[in-house]
Amino acid sequence: MRMYDIIEKKRDGGKLSQEEITFWIEGYVKGEIPDYQVSSLLMAIFFQGLDDEELTNLTLTMANSGDMIDLSEINGIKVDKHSTGGVGDKTTLIVAPIVAALGGKVAKMSGKGLGFTGGTADKLESIKGYQINIPKEDFIKQVNEIGISLISQSGNLTPADKKLYALRDVTATVESIPLIASSIMSKKIASGADCIVLDVKLGSGAFMKSLEDAKCLAEKMVNIGRLANRETIALITNMDIPLGENIGNSLEVIEAIEVLKGRGPKDLLEVSIELATAMIMLCKQVSQEEARELVKTVISNGEALEKLKQVVEAQGGDVTWIEDTSRFPEAEFKVEVRSPKSGYICNMNTEEIGKVACTLGAGRERKEDTIDYAAGLKVLKKTSDFVNQDDVIAILYTNKEEKIEEAKQKYIQALAFSENGVEKPKLIYEIVK
Amino acid sequence: MRMYDIIEKKRDGGKLSQEEITFWIEGYVKGEIPDYQVSSLLMAIFFQGLDDEELTNLTLTMANSGDMIDLSEINGIKVDKHSTGGVGDKTTLIVAPIVAALGGKVAKMSGKGLGFTGGTADKLESIKGYQINIPKEDFIKQVNEIGISLISQSGNLTPADKKLYALRDVTATVESIPLIASSIMSKKIASGADCIVLDVKLGSGAFMKSLEDAKCLAEKMVNIGRLANRETIALITNMDIPLGENIGNSLEVIEAIEVLKGRGPKDLLEVSIELATAMIMLCKQVSQEEARELVKTVISNGEALEKLKQVVEAQGGDVTWIEDTSRFPEAEFKVEVRSPKSGYICNMNTEEIGKVACTLGAGRERKEDTIDYAAGLKVLKKTSDFVNQDDVIAILYTNKEEKIEEAKQKYIQALAFSENGVEKPKLIYEIVK
Repeated sequence: MRMYDIIEKKRDGGKLSQEEITFWIEGYVKGEIPDYQVSSLLMAIFFQGLDDEELTNLTLTMANSGDMIDLSEINGIKVDKHSTGGVGDKTTLIVAPIVAALGGKVAKMSGKGLGFTGGTADKLESIKGYQINIPKEDFIKQVNEIGISLISQSGNLTPADKKLYALRDVTATVESIPLIASSIMSKKIASGADCIVLDVKLGSGAFMKSLEDAKCLAEKMVNIGRLANRETIALITNMDIPLGENIGNSLEVIEAIEVLKGRGPKDLLEVSIELATAMIMLCKQVSQEEARELVKTVISNGEALEKLKQVVEAQGGDVTWIEDTSRFPEAEFKVEVRSPKSGYICNMNTEEIGKVACTLGAGRERKEDTIDYAAGLKVLKKTSDFVNQDDVIAILYTNKEEKIEEAKQKYIQALAFSENGVEKPKLIYEIVK
Repeated sequence: MRMYDIIEKKRDGGKLSQEEITFWIEGYVKGEIPDYQVSSLLMAIFFQGLDDEELTNLTLTMANSGDMIDLSEINGIKVDKHSTGGVGDKTTLIVAPIVAALGGKVAKMSGKGLGFTGGTADKLESIKGYQINIPKEDFIKQVNEIGISLISQSGNLTPADKKLYALRDVTATVESIPLIASSIMSKKIASGADCIVLDVKLGSGAFMKSLEDAKCLAEKMVNIGRLANRETIALITNMDIPLGENIGNSLEVIEAIEVLKGRGPKDLLEVSIELATAMIMLCKQVSQEEARELVKTVISNGEALEKLKQVVEAQGGDVTWIEDTSRFPEAEFKVEVRSPKSGYICNMNTEEIGKVACTLGAGRERKEDTIDYAAGLKVLKKTSDFVNQDDVIAILYTNKEEKIEEAKQKYIQALAFSENGVEKPKLIYEIVK
């Protein structure tokens, strides 16, 4: 078998066999196939795509390229959740305790933030004492005891995906829906859960900019899940506006706690309920209505919040911070952003808003950058809201005084205003299963 | 400027600017841009193409990446000729002396053969004493004195094309018409001639397999020529059958001499006349009819043969071999191939026939292989000819006894027979100018 023939076949629209995919992925991970042949194949895939069978074979081959997390010692149905990344997306902190409170097993590994999107691992680390890296035995034991553990990705998970992603990142082949689908699903499959709920973000603050692309990605991932024997549901949710009000690590933890206390922004509550509902449908095999009722119950009766406290305590975090969120350190500077004009907010460039949070210290531009957990911002007015000139539309939190003016300007530039009313944006576009 | 953005732009169907092309080509030649980004861009070009302006910019940037041969010291109009490569194609040996005999200046650099196609440099070296590598000053001087010099490609000609071609060769991006066009034309432009005649071969023994592709390639090259101020004509000629009877280095030289002596196969004579006619049209600015008459005259009056003798003598070759071709050493084994059945030959896989010649020792599979000048074959029956079972259809010439049976079998397998008559194939499909 020759890599040349594999490239040529895909270039001409052919279908790669399991053997060809294995030859490519294994050869690449071993360093036997050079980057320049793989980047050429990736560009051919960008144009020619991969069918469901090729995609599943690629995904499973990548999943098998490194450690496969064995969760078989955990009793019960393990359910995982993944978001394609957005701004203000703290739903994992809300839905994981909800699902665990209802008996689902949440053995979840999360990533760090990069660029304008945050990462659950960073948010958890903003809680005093929280240990994100714990030994695998403790991880398993904790899930068996309290139904939940939230840790960082570690070990040699999907090295093929890591190597391919790094190459795609420098060869303009990231934006390929089958390649995105296989990248996400290989990690989810290697992570070992029985069921997977995917949150495909759509809009100006997400990778997917059109409903068509988002649906295509969602369908491909659900298909891969089915073919790989993992029950999978995907929700396509709105990322044309930031989710909730708070952006930035401890700000997002605080808001998640608010939601579990029965307060918090409505949009965040609604999306969280729908994600948790999908997870409960899968792991408890109940109808959507039943699942939704169960989810609402554990929010209103405080059991979900209690579960969050349990996981924080089990992993060394200071539970008093959850009970009293004023204990999270505040940023030195707290600056109001005022509306430059009167009118309806008709558009928010949510990626730019995510970048404002980065500017303030909440994010990383490169992997090695450090994060200021207290930095971020509060979005007070959103698309469809009417504002008068000089109304406070956002609050910036930062320890970098020199960045304040730049951040303010950028924030205002990310908004568009209109004299005419605008419809309230839909939160959930579609559920794909 | 970033290579990433250039890849992305082309991937999305954008048009690359002169600055972007220069950044890419110069960066690649200097080793500042890695292979894996270039191969990704090449695959994007495979799918998205290049328009005439991009193509001309790419071609000129590649031409300028190394030595530009300066032929300005040669008095008169310099005319070059290039074939995209075929089997039995010895036209350069015929047309170059014809054109020089008519006053055109032929300062020509030729390549070596690789794979199933031969190279003019190898053919010339089969003449005893012929020096293919001579100093540049002597090359110029000789063209000024006798109007012709035929040498090997040397120096640092189009290093960008060399590096790109080597990468295309292992990443399945050779088969891109704009990339083929720019590769050929960059070498022709760097070689310094004022006018260029291109022989685009079409058929089973050529790179171009469809008339549509061949026309597209011809048009692109002619366009580049015009935009680069080189008068260019392209002929699309038949390579569904070997050209002439003889394949193999000294066998082809002998056949070229036969044509210049007014003998030789009709198809080879006709194609040679048309190529020489196009060259004369360009360098003497005469009509096609006038040019063709001039060409026929220097064949029939022996002046073209005389010019061939002059160039062989000037470059150290033994002219007595031209006068008496029986002086070329013959292969030890001379084996008849007989028809397996009666019928009309309706198809010849000419690439396979080229490979038979290689098997017999006439070609190289790798650059470092040596060549047996005496090896090759004579094609006695061609498409549209009727043959009786056991008629001699070809003669194999080789010094490798062990390859004879394999070569015989392969030769027969390359032919298809039919009970019904087949039309004689067209020799010249189209002239593009």
